[in-house]
Amino acid sequence: MSKAIKKIGVLTSGGDAPGMNAAIRAIVRTCSYHNVECIGIFRGFQGLIDADFEVLGPRDVNYIINKGGTILKTARCVAFRTEEGRKVAYDNLKKAGVDALIVIGGDGSFTGAMVLSKEFDIPIMGIPGTIDNDIHGTSHTIGFDTALNTVVDAVDKIRDTASSHKRLFFVEVMGRDAGHIALNAGIGAGAEEILIPEENMGMERLLESLKKSKKSGKSSSIVIVAEGEKLGKNVFELGEYVETNLPEYEVRVSVLGHMQRGGAPSCFDRVLASRLSVKAVETLLEGGSNYMVGLINDQVALTPLEQAVKGHSPVDQELLRVSDIITI
Amino acid sequence: MSKAIKKIGVLTSGGDAPGMNAAIRAIVRTCSYHNVECIGIFRGFQGLIDADFEVLGPRDVNYIINKGGTILKTARCVAFRTEEGRKVAYDNLKKAGVDALIVIGGDGSFTGAMVLSKEFDIPIMGIPGTIDNDIHGTSHTIGFDTALNTVVDAVDKIRDTASSHKRLFFVEVMGRDAGHIALNAGIGAGAEEILIPEENMGMERLLESLKKSKKSGKSSSIVIVAEGEKLGKNVFELGEYVETNLPEYEVRVSVLGHMQRGGAPSCFDRVLASRLSVKAVETLLEGGSNYMVGLINDQVALTPLEQAVKGHSPVDQELLRVSDIITI
Amino acid sequence: MSKAIKKIGVLTSGGDAPGMNAAIRAIVRTCSYHNVECIGIFRGFQGLIDADFEVLGPRDVNYIINKGGTILKTARCVAFRTEEGRKVAYDNLKKAGVDALIVIGGDGSFTGAMVLSKEFDIPIMGIPGTIDNDIHGTSHTIGFDTALNTVVDAVDKIRDTASSHKRLFFVEVMGRDAGHIALNAGIGAGAEEILIPEENMGMERLLESLKKSKKSGKSSSIVIVAEGEKLGKNVFELGEYVETNLPEYEVRVSVLGHMQRGGAPSCFDRVLASRLSVKAVETLLEGGSNYMVGLINDQVALTPLEQAVKGHSPVDQELLRVSDIITI
Amino acid sequence: MSKAIKKIGVLTSGGDAPGMNAAIRAIVRTCSYHNVECIGIFRGFQGLIDADFEVLGPRDVNYIINKGGTILKTARCVAFRTEEGRKVAYDNLKKAGVDALIVIGGDGSFTGAMVLSKEFDIPIMGIPGTIDNDIHGTSHTIGFDTALNTVVDAVDKIRDTASSHKRLFFVEVMGRDAGHIALNAGIGAGAEEILIPEENMGMERLLESLKKSKKSGKSSSIVIVAEGEKLGKNVFELGEYVETNLPEYEVRVSVLGHMQRGGAPSCFDRVLASRLSVKAVETLLEGGSNYMVGLINDQVALTPLEQAVKGHSPVDQELLRVSDIITI
Repeated sequence: MSKAIKKIGVLTSGGDAPGMNAAIRAIVRTCSYHNVECIGIFRGFQGLIDADFEVLGPRDVNYIINKGGTILKTARCVAFRTEEGRKVAYDNLKKAGVDALIVIGGDGSFTGAMVLSKEFDIPIMGIPGTIDNDIHGTSHTIGFDTALNTVVDAVDKIRDTASSHKRLFFVEVMGRDAGHIALNAGIGAGAEEILIPEENMGMERLLESLKKSKKSGKSSSIVIVAEGEKLGKNVFELGEYVETNLPEYEVRVSVLGHMQRGGAPSCFDRVLASRLSVKAVETLLEGGSNYMVGLINDQVALTPLEQAVKGHSPVDQELLRVSDIITI
Repeated sequence: MSKAIKKIGVLTSGGDAPGMNAAIRAIVRTCSYHNVECIGIFRGFQGLIDADFEVLGPRDVNYIINKGGTILKTARCVAFRTEEGRKVAYDNLKKAGVDALIVIGGDGSFTGAMVLSKEFDIPIMGIPGTIDNDIHGTSHTIGFDTALNTVVDAVDKIRDTASSHKRLFFVEVMGRDAGHIALNAGIGAGAEEILIPEENMGMERLLESLKKSKKSGKSSSIVIVAEGEKLGKNVFELGEYVETNLPEYEVRVSVLGHMQRGGAPSCFDRVLASRLSVKAVETLLEGGSNYMVGLINDQVALTPLEQAVKGHSPVDQELLRVSDIITI
Repeated sequence: MSKAIKKIGVLTSGGDAPGMNAAIRAIVRTCSYHNVECIGIFRGFQGLIDADFEVLGPRDVNYIINKGGTILKTARCVAFRTEEGRKVAYDNLKKAGVDALIVIGGDGSFTGAMVLSKEFDIPIMGIPGTIDNDIHGTSHTIGFDTALNTVVDAVDKIRDTASSHKRLFFVEVMGRDAGHIALNAGIGAGAEEILIPEENMGMERLLESLKKSKKSGKSSSIVIVAEGEKLGKNVFELGEYVETNLPEYEVRVSVLGHMQRGGAPSCFDRVLASRLSVKAVETLLEGGSNYMVGLINDQVALTPLEQAVKGHSPVDQELLRVSDIITI
Repeated sequence: MSKAIKKIGVLTSGGDAPGMNAAIRAIVRTCSYHNVECIGIFRGFQGLIDADFEVLGPRDVNYIINKGGTILKTARCVAFRTEEGRKVAYDNLKKAGVDALIVIGGDGSFTGAMVLSKEFDIPIMGIPGTIDNDIHGTSHTIGFDTALNTVVDAVDKIRDTASSHKRLFFVEVMGRDAGHIALNAGIGAGAEEILIPEENMGMERLLESLKKSKKSGKSSSIVIVAEGEKLGKNVFELGEYVETNLPEYEVRVSVLGHMQRGGAPSCFDRVLASRLSVKAVETLLEGGSNYMVGLINDQVALTPLEQAVKGHSPVDQELLRVSDIITI
């Protein structure tokens, strides 16, 4: 890793997230600032195997900072999980003169990159890009803040109709196995209850809480349900169960779905993506490798990728408490 | 109906729609302008039966023009379908001195009001408030334009992730038995196909069209599906069927759901609601009754409620053609 | 004009407006649908003179339906006002094999195109694209609806702070010499007063109205001011004058400015742009020329460009009345 | 301060900020959770002097978490700056049985509260509510994140028209004497230059930078200007100066103004407001006083009000560097 880096490749992998384009833009321009060439790799690891590359200069990333999705596309890649696949990938990188790789994505993407780096001694850096915020080594992943605003905006709309009809809504939000989106957006949306995988509320307590809520004079209620947790039921079964057991409620269910992944990134995500990307490029140029760049205590910080992948990103107990108190 | 009207009651009924509050505000203020008292009736026809009334003055409707939902709430009311129920309703109106009634809602709500009017000779007016745009006698119902923007905004977000992953999305939108939302929002969102109850596309043609779309070089596709039409399948079955028959596509399904009913009304809906409401009040004051106020050829126009309820609101064939052409 | 049209050029001219890209997309695709080539001309008439052309196929206009601005750019062009300039333009069109021209813009742009058409017998069509809605022959210009939503959204935000502080705001909106934006957005935003060039309110009546408004119990007020009308003062002088004469008010001024021209187009503008564009292309293919395509009574309709340019687009007197009534 | 607190008063003071209502809601509900009464004080310190109080229960703050502005209003209060005024205020609090006070606002508001606390030994807490983020002891003030999104959204719109016309825009944003909004929103909006009071760029360097920007192939440019810094000129003079000296640019100026203060708060601001408010109430109940509750290293933390008022909130040097690099 001591030889000077002249060409950096960048790819996005896994689920797309708003702010990925802001990261790509910042990587391209930081490369240019340091007189290093930048190569865009299309469709994640698949693009490595297909040598789907394109040189990116500062003007090629004009007007993308505010676009959702990723101009580099993303895809699942089975071939990259085999040694042969990764050999092809490495050969393509070598042929193109790419000295180092930046991967924007989540845990799975980092793991793939780490294997490649170990097998072929190529410097890599990871940038956490996922709306789920389920990555160790950063308080915020790129896309999380935007997704929270998207969810809160959607639930504000649902609240309009819920309160007009005095209904109870179960709203399922994304987050994979983590409750970060549910917990934060639940507080932000003023949800009466928030069901997350990290906390086992239990069906009985949910029914109790909803009964109490009704008695307290609330005429409509929103329950936010993380996709990873539904008390052993899917969200529609959950709604039916509650309607059966609490006939005083008229229940509706809404699954927000993939719109949570898109949209113009928030200012927070644009700034975050820019900061992490400058650091990722400069770390490579200073000889660093195998780190994830994240935000810790509001400062850009490096975490060894191995730790990032193994570590947990628990939900904040203080937030759970705040949620309990303010839904009184 | 010759006696002077001194007090007008207003209620919202059926599904809520953005712009209903703008209508309530305009009714209250037009009453005040003409020195007539205005009574807000809560929870639709149920509020008539429960005498759930409140005098509304111009300052009581400050700052509601931009709020989704309805401050008067809405509810289904079984009792109002009985003669006894309507007798109670009429007695409550009489006791409160209400001389005339304005109903903001859809077909079902108008029908209820017409029965009351016939039985007790009370003047009524209807204002079309529903996101579905399925009412005869108006080019636009209150809430339709806002719902279109909400759908288009959501599909723009889904497009971000669809194009990043090169996926095919089936997006179900509201509209009950009508395809107005699907057709207009489908064109606005640049959907590849639009499935509406008014047009029987047939499964074969859909598959053909999607195959052609793929060949034409499109890397992602959105199909908008009206809730009233799914070619005999629900939207999830539809997605599975297509994925099975077109394995070149990775299919995802999203049901936009109740968020389509909420949100701050668009300028169009606020202006529309204001215009129709002024006319509704003034028609009552001039001795008119049993009309729906609507927009025809951009002008406020009256349609006898009987016609409004019986008539159809077909989708525009020109729009269907435009949709076909521009998705090439 | 009898010879078959094989190649259509399209340009955007004058101020940009949201929905212009939706129009370009629909023109390109309608051409493709009819097996006609489409040529994009950059920077308005300047691009004609510079032969700044690019062939546009259906896939070149993917993902632009939701983008503000115009991918073809727009510019002022002094040279095109001279006969020599237009000769160069025509020669370039001929060299490129362009048989007909579609101009998306306003009055000035149409006039330029008409001169070219007369001088060189080239078929042309006009599509009204401007946020100002000041064009005869269409109830709505492309971009108008979006601008209304942008203004209403901004004034909703200003209302938050106005009502928290109990202030009087003067908000200047665009519209050139016409009051369409001010009148519609003023009603939509719940403005207390709306000052437009078409109605001479007079300073005395404004002061009277504001005094009355204060007495009626309103704690905050918004006055919308069209850029074309300020009672002989600029909006800052107007604010100062009112503060001096009505010391009970704390006055603030906000000029919304160029943000009104941008943003993702509303569903209405996307559908409108698509409809008008299909008709523009097909009119040319059917041998028509020198028409503007517009929306009249909700239907797509042709108006001779000469009439469109000469005619007026007066504000609706009914809207003025509605505005007076509901601000009581 | 040892006696038990039974009644807490809350007021908002200074400029309003999105999220203030979320704070009021959380304070009211945390009081209720701990069986303490909560008194809303209207129009800031003026309401203390006028005894403009209202008991607030958990249901009184339904549906306000998503509203901009402050339901408690805010106002400047000259009388509170005098000892007599504060005596009246204290007497009113005593008469109403209010044991402690929470002030949501900025430096000036905290200073006023501290004087009252010192003079009359009444426990107080401060919650930082201002869009300017210029308060020591918290990484984020309530309203800052929302204002950033509002600015970025507006500049995205301006960018549409700037790039269509190839223009240079100077956009003035709020922030009083601090550059936090300008710096963060400038990075988020992809601004070419950001002028803030904390950094003296100098006119020459600005001209140099814009010349370089033009040469690099950028066709449009946005310069964000903090209201506190304009290189000795107001933003209009600045625009004129640049247009005179760089005739290759067509310059436009936009002052975003008071819309930056309003709008539905972002999820971040709603969660932040909720967290700080729970802590503010509980600190009072535990006997604490004269602290500001803030966010430090992502954790809720207390800072003595005296320090909060005296300390500085400098802009982040790393952000300045990121801004320089990515605008290449």
